[in-house]
Amino acid sequence: MSSGPTLETIRDAHQRIAPYIHRTPVFTSQSLDEFAGARLFFKCENLQKTGSFKMRGAANAVFSLSDAEARRGVVTHSSGNHAAALARAATLRGIPAWIVMPSNAPELKKKAVEDYGGRITLCQPTLAAREAAAQKLIAETGAVLLHPYDDDRIIAGQATAALELIEDVADLDFLLAPVSGGGLLSGTAIAAKTLRPAIRVVGCEPANSDDALRSLRAGSIQPAANAVTMADGLRATLCERTLTILRERVDEIVLVSEQEIVATMRLLWERLKLVVEPSGAVPASPALHRQMAISGKRVGVILSGGNLDLGKLPFR
Amino acid sequence: MSSGPTLETIRDAHQRIAPYIHRTPVFTSQSLDEFAGARLFFKCENLQKTGSFKMRGAANAVFSLSDAEARRGVVTHSSGNHAAALARAATLRGIPAWIVMPSNAPELKKKAVEDYGGRITLCQPTLAAREAAAQKLIAETGAVLLHPYDDDRIIAGQATAALELIEDVADLDFLLAPVSGGGLLSGTAIAAKTLRPAIRVVGCEPANSDDALRSLRAGSIQPAANAVTMADGLRATLCERTLTILRERVDEIVLVSEQEIVATMRLLWERLKLVVEPSGAVPASPALHRQMAISGKRVGVILSGGNLDLGKLPFR
Repeated sequence: MSSGPTLETIRDAHQRIAPYIHRTPVFTSQSLDEFAGARLFFKCENLQKTGSFKMRGAANAVFSLSDAEARRGVVTHSSGNHAAALARAATLRGIPAWIVMPSNAPELKKKAVEDYGGRITLCQPTLAAREAAAQKLIAETGAVLLHPYDDDRIIAGQATAALELIEDVADLDFLLAPVSGGGLLSGTAIAAKTLRPAIRVVGCEPANSDDALRSLRAGSIQPAANAVTMADGLRATLCERTLTILRERVDEIVLVSEQEIVATMRLLWERLKLVVEPSGAVPASPALHRQMAISGKRVGVILSGGNLDLGKLPFR
Repeated sequence: MSSGPTLETIRDAHQRIAPYIHRTPVFTSQSLDEFAGARLFFKCENLQKTGSFKMRGAANAVFSLSDAEARRGVVTHSSGNHAAALARAATLRGIPAWIVMPSNAPELKKKAVEDYGGRITLCQPTLAAREAAAQKLIAETGAVLLHPYDDDRIIAGQATAALELIEDVADLDFLLAPVSGGGLLSGTAIAAKTLRPAIRVVGCEPANSDDALRSLRAGSIQPAANAVTMADGLRATLCERTLTILRERVDEIVLVSEQEIVATMRLLWERLKLVVEPSGAVPASPALHRQMAISGKRVGVILSGGNLDLGKLPFR
């Protein structure tokens, strides 16, 4: 018996969230194929509602709640794409979303959450303060905590990106996705390996935040050492739930340097004409930099998001 | 009797170039619609082959040549998107393309032309030197000059973007396109007004390069005063051919400031997650800045291209 949601659960999630998400397009580029020496299929989750795949999991979790549960609202203490997605999903359901954010969160992220209808609670920028603030909100309001990845409903939602990609592109040999807390990669691996057992599922993470690789090697959660990476969506750590799924289903973890992230972003922006955030560029990097044995193969890449501050770009 | 190519010629062009171009997608955004107070439909020619609509006209012209004409190759003295597109179209037909470029052309543009298989001839950065170099090449090789817009084959090709948009989006009230030499706007106006006489066709140009507005008002070609605009694709001047078509078919010309170009680019990049070059952002600007009476209307916008130097972005 394998861990995590089943393919049937993922298909149910897909049907549930269909009214609230985009079926995102798959982009291809002759010049990038020549660059990589392989056929690349980019699943454009940067074009997803709220600018990232997180809308899939958030919508599935929010619309999975019973009316009684939902009425009191939802809470999370992510400050990134999950927060914006949860705020949007809650607004679509007509319920409140409380988002606990550190007081030093960038204005851009606060604004995104507000624009999507989220209610921000600021706290000190420590994990303890964030969790305490979330617990206080839950006690006061009775709202449901929706963790960004330690939740099978979230994982089933994120899995729908791979489900669509495999439906749309025949005979994929590889599927590359970023790994942070492991929600997207868990869902991707379950969907891909169930539909297509021969596929190789590869998680990609910043070398500066290599806790997933170390955790998988050790067989237990290894904390991220104060991760300094521009891929700000990939700083979280696996949980037991995602570690178990990844151990069962993922073939390999590949590390990506900061320099490679910038070079990959630039290639994607120049050739695909797409705005992809650093975290979204991470899974494209090993393919474009020929760091994997994919010559002549068909390779799916999940471009996970496109949210970043255009005033602070790394291009020179 | 109206001037320029007919709808039938445009349909022929569309069939001729279909194997060589993308039928580009139409993007929409709820948040930009709210911003504009209208329904906006963005025709994504930044996602076109070679990164701009110019591939349509170039492909039509190159594949319209007889075998005898084509054998000796083609020449142009544009240094921008038309040059790259012509080089690519010629390579696809298996014939040489000579591109005359000023010696001070940016490396990025030279590289694009070379990458697409063009043969660059450098000359002094004056119009006289460019024309002389082109004439010398024609005399030596017998190649055919393909002007970037003073040519009905080019205009018919550029018109296919509007043709597709009107096929894909019902009941458009407005269609906005950039104007420079007037090839795209001429083709757009012919296709749009023939298929949908009630549509309003609006040309958009940088205030710093307002020669199309002045020429239309005067009824004769008015030279561009040394145009200083970041929209480097919109510095050319109308010719008699395009002036005549625009006088017959275009409802209005709207000017866009440099500040508005940057603000519009930023909105498009942030909300659509698309890389759009300054010239491509120009036609979106009047819609997004509510400078036209389009409230509640359905507005098509041709995002004409996505080629620019990522190392020199105007965002702060």
